[in-house]
Amino acid sequence: MGKIPEDHPRYQSLVAREKLIAAGELVAGAGLIAHGRGEAFDYLLGEKTTGPAYSAINVAAELLCNARQPVISANGNSIALAGPAIAELAIAIPARVEVNLFHRSSARVSGLAALLREAGIEPLGERPDFHIPGLASERAKCSRAGIGDADVVLVPLEDGDRCQALVDLGKKVIAIDLNPLSRTARTAHVTIVDELTRCLPLLITAVNRKKPAGADFDNEKNLGKVMEQMRIVLKNMQTRTGEG
Amino acid sequence: MGKIPEDHPRYQSLVAREKLIAAGELVAGAGLIAHGRGEAFDYLLGEKTTGPAYSAINVAAELLCNARQPVISANGNSIALAGPAIAELAIAIPARVEVNLFHRSSARVSGLAALLREAGIEPLGERPDFHIPGLASERAKCSRAGIGDADVVLVPLEDGDRCQALVDLGKKVIAIDLNPLSRTARTAHVTIVDELTRCLPLLITAVNRKKPAGADFDNEKNLGKVMEQMRIVLKNMQTRTGEG
Repeated sequence: MGKIPEDHPRYQSLVAREKLIAAGELVAGAGLIAHGRGEAFDYLLGEKTTGPAYSAINVAAELLCNARQPVISANGNSIALAGPAIAELAIAIPARVEVNLFHRSSARVSGLAALLREAGIEPLGERPDFHIPGLASERAKCSRAGIGDADVVLVPLEDGDRCQALVDLGKKVIAIDLNPLSRTARTAHVTIVDELTRCLPLLITAVNRKKPAGADFDNEKNLGKVMEQMRIVLKNMQTRTGEG
Repeated sequence: MGKIPEDHPRYQSLVAREKLIAAGELVAGAGLIAHGRGEAFDYLLGEKTTGPAYSAINVAAELLCNARQPVISANGNSIALAGPAIAELAIAIPARVEVNLFHRSSARVSGLAALLREAGIEPLGERPDFHIPGLASERAKCSRAGIGDADVVLVPLEDGDRCQALVDLGKKVIAIDLNPLSRTARTAHVTIVDELTRCLPLLITAVNRKKPAGADFDNEKNLGKVMEQMRIVLKNMQTRTGEG
């Protein structure tokens, strides 16, 4: 990672990519591909936190702070990219963190749990005792004391099937997903369309501030605003490359 | 790969993803991330070959057929996704294929060359004897009998630096890249913005047909048309999700 110059215009993006590759077996091959999809959508956001993302962050902070049992579901990508920030957010809320993987193996769960312990929290997920109905066995495994009994679940970088299954279970789901068109983005109750390492500090600040976000948030409308931003970025790039 | 149902609406995309992951060490981690970026842009193309892509394919076919020494530069992603189609294209033109990698190692070059041999051609690239000026050592290595002496180079899924270096060397460069905003897309003389496995059969057909494509092709204008298509797709998706 030392090779990327800090003044590179896309420094943060390149550091994130290096972190994921350096995580080796802890991040699944499909996780690297998913990260690439996110990079492309972030490019269309101008690689910055948009107004609609700030709105969603504030609503998410309020939901997490008012929850009976808030849980952060963490996977390989999210821990490799932002383990310490996830731990900091969990302490600020306070919430439990559960390691929950699409491509589950005991070795990956333990390795990722160890990274969270290094970041100062004791995660759930190593001894699953609850199944999310409607999902194939490995992806369904989780902890009753975590996702099983949660009323609000924050799912950074989730898969669409599991997001839907959690909603079907009656959970309030907050997603962090750079693709405003994904099933996760459209299924969650609150979708933060922003890059994970960029929005977690903002979410932590919002949690610490504990300011009411207002009750008139409409996720579908908010996603529409994000797509409008992407169209404007694409239009500006198109103009810059010479085609008006 | 047997697990993906053929009637899945995104079957081709899922098969491509599985092929890359199955290639293991032959595809670099960064290659998986790059594939993900391509998936996102392809989504914005509606996952189909657009009019501007057909125009670029016809111009590319003419350039390749009229070249003194056309060379196809193949990397891990392109061989894992489309080794047999690359071989078929090389035979149709005819052109040499050179294995040329960003993350070069002897083992990866040999493994990828073996896949091309299985597909029926004898590739270059295992014994580099030429350096592309202006690139760091490993990325610069190539064969004099291939890229070194080529007048026209087809670079599917290339990196921006090398595309620029090939243009600086005086080569005519044809790129296949799903991101119309990338440096590769904007630096190449002819950019086919299309998914590799979808456009190679079309390129082979165009090569076999040998129909003149017309001399009025403007790559920058063609990229502008692609971006316009993406904006329309985004607009349609936005409307469908409820925000007009």
